[in-house]
Amino acid sequence: MNATDTIAAIRADARFAAAAATLAAEHERIVQDVITLTEIPAPPFGEERRAAAYLGMLRDHGLEEVEQDEIGNVMGLRRGFGNGGILVVAAHLDTVFPAGTDVRVRREGSRLYAPGISDDTWSLAVNLGFIRALDAAGIRTRDDILFVGDVGEEGLGDLRGVRHLFARSRHRERIRAFLTVDSPEVDRIVAGGVGSRRYRVTFRGPGGHSYAAFGLVNPMYAMAEAARALAAVEVPNSPPTTHCVSIVSGGTSINAIPNAVTMEVDLRSASAAELDRLDARFLAIVDEAVAAENAARSINAGVITAEVQRVGDRPAGETPAGAPIRAFAAAAVAAEGYTPRFEFSSTDANVPMSLGIPALKVGAGGRGGRAHSLEEWLDVAPEESLRGMRTTLAAILALAGMEGIG
Amino acid sequence: MNATDTIAAIRADARFAAAAATLAAEHERIVQDVITLTEIPAPPFGEERRAAAYLGMLRDHGLEEVEQDEIGNVMGLRRGFGNGGILVVAAHLDTVFPAGTDVRVRREGSRLYAPGISDDTWSLAVNLGFIRALDAAGIRTRDDILFVGDVGEEGLGDLRGVRHLFARSRHRERIRAFLTVDSPEVDRIVAGGVGSRRYRVTFRGPGGHSYAAFGLVNPMYAMAEAARALAAVEVPNSPPTTHCVSIVSGGTSINAIPNAVTMEVDLRSASAAELDRLDARFLAIVDEAVAAENAARSINAGVITAEVQRVGDRPAGETPAGAPIRAFAAAAVAAEGYTPRFEFSSTDANVPMSLGIPALKVGAGGRGGRAHSLEEWLDVAPEESLRGMRTTLAAILALAGMEGIG
Repeated sequence: MNATDTIAAIRADARFAAAAATLAAEHERIVQDVITLTEIPAPPFGEERRAAAYLGMLRDHGLEEVEQDEIGNVMGLRRGFGNGGILVVAAHLDTVFPAGTDVRVRREGSRLYAPGISDDTWSLAVNLGFIRALDAAGIRTRDDILFVGDVGEEGLGDLRGVRHLFARSRHRERIRAFLTVDSPEVDRIVAGGVGSRRYRVTFRGPGGHSYAAFGLVNPMYAMAEAARALAAVEVPNSPPTTHCVSIVSGGTSINAIPNAVTMEVDLRSASAAELDRLDARFLAIVDEAVAAENAARSINAGVITAEVQRVGDRPAGETPAGAPIRAFAAAAVAAEGYTPRFEFSSTDANVPMSLGIPALKVGAGGRGGRAHSLEEWLDVAPEESLRGMRTTLAAILALAGMEGIG
Repeated sequence: MNATDTIAAIRADARFAAAAATLAAEHERIVQDVITLTEIPAPPFGEERRAAAYLGMLRDHGLEEVEQDEIGNVMGLRRGFGNGGILVVAAHLDTVFPAGTDVRVRREGSRLYAPGISDDTWSLAVNLGFIRALDAAGIRTRDDILFVGDVGEEGLGDLRGVRHLFARSRHRERIRAFLTVDSPEVDRIVAGGVGSRRYRVTFRGPGGHSYAAFGLVNPMYAMAEAARALAAVEVPNSPPTTHCVSIVSGGTSINAIPNAVTMEVDLRSASAAELDRLDARFLAIVDEAVAAENAARSINAGVITAEVQRVGDRPAGETPAGAPIRAFAAAAVAAEGYTPRFEFSSTDANVPMSLGIPALKVGAGGRGGRAHSLEEWLDVAPEESLRGMRTTLAAILALAGMEGIG
């Protein structure tokens, strides 16, 4: 049975209809949950309060082995009838908004406005809805489903929650597939994880008076050489690979050779191999630029050195075109009349993709916008949002192996 | 009569001995004056209160045409018996210290501690001592001596006081020579004025997301190219000529192509022609770097531009080795047993030097240190400080033409 047939069989099953009916009946409860969770601040590296609340909710939903791990992720298992393979269904707890942001939700008709509400708090609430729908319909799956609220997806969080899940959790060996439910739209499926390496490079030297010490090495010139050399590095369009010198600072006075200058650099690629190649080239460029400056001017008062600090590291990866997980997700999207599109992005799914574990980012249903801005919004109009929820629920059931199907 | 003989004749004259005796008798009055003046703050562009006080002192010393000019300099004329040639004897009113600095003077034995006390408040007080000594000794000079307390010597003041004196004052056509009394030490005579041009260059571009907008022009790369090209410009050792990229800043986020980056640049030379050449080359380098970046990457979202702001301009100049003013000053220094040294620096004397008017920076006597720091000090031990005052007074008399000598 191909993916389209599997999805069709799931959707034709009376139990799926019962689950969908539960989602519809409980729509307002899901909305209340997203309001509750959104109004608990979860800034980067400050997810504790929201994690504690979500932990309680997972426990109230009758999951097994409900726990918080060392890094801060909260999770619980919906046991399958098979041999213990696991499908992870995750959503991230953190938002991009700093502590002190007004996170109160304003509701206007079907629209809810609040920072973080669609990215990704909505998915936390919808995942709870899925559990209740499955339970109400008596649906069993072959695989265990591990529902996770994870930390550290945004910015400098550097995917530390999901990274920890795959590096340390006792479940990790059994994980067969991974879905992160992130943002409302279901038609845009992320199957390629753009990896990034971010650096802060500080070039240091002896400094000195611009006139009296003229001729000494200047860390600005080493930085300029490194920036120019990076700018000239050729990278492929496909897989998309990019580099950027983004922030620079340094120097103390207009009449002084600076003691130190700093640049921040962002390297990205959808290909782990290309990212590694670019990364190695960049590090070599820094060394070459330092050596060139030390050769170009006097080092009598001291040499130029570079301190290279890696401030970000997101692995690249791709769930390849032939992977069954892609086929199931696309079939589920198409079955609700959407046109599935596969995209590259940087999400929690980067981590399993980089490990070769089938993984996608899927949607929670509904529509949203202005993510990462204070005007972030979520539209929960029932027809559209339930259509999206059914899409992702069908994909989950196909991946976890719905009892009696296939 | 050569310079050594002239200085010897002045020093052997009973009137000079009387003037020196007055300086010695009034030593403590000069010290009280420097304390009074130092404790009146004179931050850059905030010299008004000190100028008003010094204006009153010049008036009290019986000078003629005592006035404050439009730019803020205060001055008065000690009339000569000749045809109206003028020797300027200046000291600068301003200090490098910002408003709010504690400028109270602490006295420990012969040492006075306070910001600005030796650079250059001491010279203001000593110049008043010279007037009293000349008057007490009944010394007349051929040339008028214009005593000036000028504004804007430090930093971004950009020599605006002395610049104005030579550009606008009604005395300007009659000025034959210029001495700025600046800092205590008399053996280090500044005869070469290092000129400078200072720039703040802001490179602007469309900016964009480091990943999504990859390939657009990046103002950082234009700046890097300009910095590298400037670093490679060859300049002569003699006349000393230098360049420095000193301060850089720009960018907003590690994942964004910056909209704007800025660098500050300091160009200097003891030669006006070399400074002009370097200046022109630098401005061309900026244009070339902008053009290169616009050619290297996409300008679909906008081009790179450079805003070049000149934030400093001090003219270069030199009072040449054969100039009589140098011979008189050196002979006066040597006559007190010091070893005269001629140096390059950037002082009020740059302005007349750049105009071809004989000019030097000389000392006020005594010793000082830590200028431009909060620990600035001045040692007024009488023997040493009077020795220095006699040195500069003899040079003034040689330059202004002491009645009956030569």
